[in-house]
Amino acid sequence: MLEIGELLCEGKSKRLYATNDPDVALLYFKDEARAFQGLKRGRILGKGEVNNVVCRRLYEQLAALGIETHYISQVDPRQSLVRVVEMIPIKVKVRNIVAGSLVDRMEMPEGTRLPRPVIEYRLKDQSDSELVNATHIEAKGLATYEEMNFISATALKINEFLCSRMKEINIEVIDFQMEFGRWRGKILLADEITPDVARFWDARTGEPMDIDRFRRDLGDVAQGYQEVLRRLMGMEE
Amino acid sequence: MLEIGELLCEGKSKRLYATNDPDVALLYFKDEARAFQGLKRGRILGKGEVNNVVCRRLYEQLAALGIETHYISQVDPRQSLVRVVEMIPIKVKVRNIVAGSLVDRMEMPEGTRLPRPVIEYRLKDQSDSELVNATHIEAKGLATYEEMNFISATALKINEFLCSRMKEINIEVIDFQMEFGRWRGKILLADEITPDVARFWDARTGEPMDIDRFRRDLGDVAQGYQEVLRRLMGMEE
Repeated sequence: MLEIGELLCEGKSKRLYATNDPDVALLYFKDEARAFQGLKRGRILGKGEVNNVVCRRLYEQLAALGIETHYISQVDPRQSLVRVVEMIPIKVKVRNIVAGSLVDRMEMPEGTRLPRPVIEYRLKDQSDSELVNATHIEAKGLATYEEMNFISATALKINEFLCSRMKEINIEVIDFQMEFGRWRGKILLADEITPDVARFWDARTGEPMDIDRFRRDLGDVAQGYQEVLRRLMGMEE
Repeated sequence: MLEIGELLCEGKSKRLYATNDPDVALLYFKDEARAFQGLKRGRILGKGEVNNVVCRRLYEQLAALGIETHYISQVDPRQSLVRVVEMIPIKVKVRNIVAGSLVDRMEMPEGTRLPRPVIEYRLKDQSDSELVNATHIEAKGLATYEEMNFISATALKINEFLCSRMKEINIEVIDFQMEFGRWRGKILLADEITPDVARFWDARTGEPMDIDRFRRDLGDVAQGYQEVLRRLMGMEE
């Protein structure tokens, strides 16, 4: 019988608890939302439940394609069991279409399709403005070149899957962020892929269905998240 | 007989003139100095002459090692002839020791030796704060992955040469910046390697002998440049 133990860590959108199995942790998805390095805070009703199920569905489908993740099983609407991995403290972002900070960096208008995906790394504990590359990451001792090569190749595979899966339900994957962790000599996709860490646009209207609705006060924030879930679970299209 | 034509472009430290040979340009090294995106401006007496000769000496030695550069020959104390290349608008920086903006990016104190060199790319027309990587560069159509692979491998070879050459004259190469250009299907080292675009520290005192003396009002700016030239030309050590 699995018992829930102490809080291991808490981020802006999730809490991670130990269990009596040292290899298994409980991931709790919160409704809290933050933007602009925590300057804007709020609550998106039902977000935790949406993210838990969206992430489960995507990670199960990735596993079926041979891409290993930390996900084990769903416990209840807001909680899932995951492997305890040694997190690599790097945020990996894949971008297909110019949005957000890329507008200035690339000097291209929002909405421009990139000829090939752009991959960006940031240190997990730093502000969003600072990019690093594999030479910084290795010099800081956070991961080896070999690990970063595996991560970037895996990130591109995940992007390919995500774009084609979301296209089926009329959602355009603008960009999304991943984190990876080490587990028994392997590197697993960890953290989450949800509208909290992605830009998902409705393919027909171009409207955001993600955290940008909160960041930019677009209204109907919870509805945007619910609609991603609804389409992903085959309740529409 | 070579004739000097119109001004092709002018940067913060050099002017490039056309000649009557469409494959050859004249590079004029100025005394003007700028820092902090042009907010600080000044003049370092004799800098143009030092840089012209320092760059000539280094580029000649690189050519002898098989690393091709735009350099052709020196014309007079401030001017050299160079190949007309199609510039790749990317600044390539190699770093061996933490200094400048890397202190914050790496969260390491100034003077920390990196376990391996860090390579950074910036778009030439953007402020110094923005890093890009090969995926941005390719997406902007500025260079292909293959070109960037060649450039990063060449940059590391140039760094190896520069570190060992400068070590002989008791100068530590903290970091330096390069630009490359296309010429007849090849990629050549272009622009300059001089104390204007490098951090050179006296190996015995740790004192900067470069543009940081100007940036940070350390005094004896022209003397720092002259001393680099003096040592490089074998007038000491």
